[in-house]
Amino acid sequence: PKKPDFSNRGMTLEEDINVTNEYYLASNTAVIHKKPTPVQIVRVDYPKRSAAVIKEGYFKQASTTDYNGIYRGNYIDFEAKETRNKTSFPLSNIHQHQIDHMKAVHEHGGICFMIIRFTPHQETFFLSAVKLFYWWDEQYKGGRKSIPYSYIQRNGKLIPFTYQARVDYVKVLDKLFF
Amino acid sequence: PKKPDFSNRGMTLEEDINVTNEYYLASNTAVIHKKPTPVQIVRVDYPKRSAAVIKEGYFKQASTTDYNGIYRGNYIDFEAKETRNKTSFPLSNIHQHQIDHMKAVHEHGGICFMIIRFTPHQETFFLSAVKLFYWWDEQYKGGRKSIPYSYIQRNGKLIPFTYQARVDYVKVLDKLFF
Ligand SMILES: [Mg+2]
Ligand SMILES: [Mg+2]
Repeated sequence: PKKPDFSNRGMTLEEDINVTNEYYLASNTAVIHKKPTPVQIVRVDYPKRSAAVIKEGYFKQASTTDYNGIYRGNYIDFEAKETRNKTSFPLSNIHQHQIDHMKAVHEHGGICFMIIRFTPHQETFFLSAVKLFYWWDEQYKGGRKSIPYSYIQRNGKLIPFTYQARVDYVKVLDKLFF
Repeated sequence: PKKPDFSNRGMTLEEDINVTNEYYLASNTAVIHKKPTPVQIVRVDYPKRSAAVIKEGYFKQASTTDYNGIYRGNYIDFEAKETRNKTSFPLSNIHQHQIDHMKAVHEHGGICFMIIRFTPHQETFFLSAVKLFYWWDEQYKGGRKSIPYSYIQRNGKLIPFTYQARVDYVKVLDKLFF
């Protein structure tokens, strides 16, 4: 019999993580939410008898990561990115202020990491923030501008995929931190 | 000599907390951010050679609180509200899903609370989530629909006001939790 191919339903990594977080919330496993997209609102209309309408707004760059919350009493903070690249994860997907934020979280004792999906391989990895920092800092010392897929395979953790928890990252946290 | 009147500069509670959080971040005290306002984006224009413009969007109700982050290794989560009421804080300022969120955070071991400013008194209070839950649940058992100012005075904590940390709420956390 064919294996069910959950991963091929055209859901983005973000959608998969959101569904996972809803499952974690409903099952009382963790309380983790995606932050809303930051928007600079310039003009709003207030029509009579109906909801306010934003008529002019702009996307702002996020100053933090996309996801945070609490798991087993610990502060959790992560960024999620997918790439179509087969051999490496380009560091241009990340911004300096996100790294600054992740370093601050790490210093304050939070559990901080990245979730990286290689779409061509249909694989989603956990990579600790500390390992990300290494590659981030190296690029300014003449190092490469991407993290090799082979490094992530060896030094990250493959995140299990189940129907209810499509990106079941707390399983990795359980192994690494508890 | 007159006391400097910092509190009368027309800054909202949200602005004061944002300045405070910036100070906490810069002084390596805590990493706490306001979440962006949730917006449902319906239509976006992509003009040539300039930034994407949101042409139609709507405000969505927040499913969580406004602020979260990490302090002394602990997950922190709070909602901030100001009222012009002199004698009580109306519970209509809070939504059921925010209470649900705060209860989940509390169960998972996070530090969860409200910051309530009584604008007429120029006083800003810390009120633990557990005390909020009491009044919230009471209103559905025939209780009142607001928390008396006198209760908050006695059972909350007045948050100190300083120039750099205009709503210096971690001082209250230090006394209560550490
Ligand atoms: Mg992002
Ligand atoms: Mg709010």
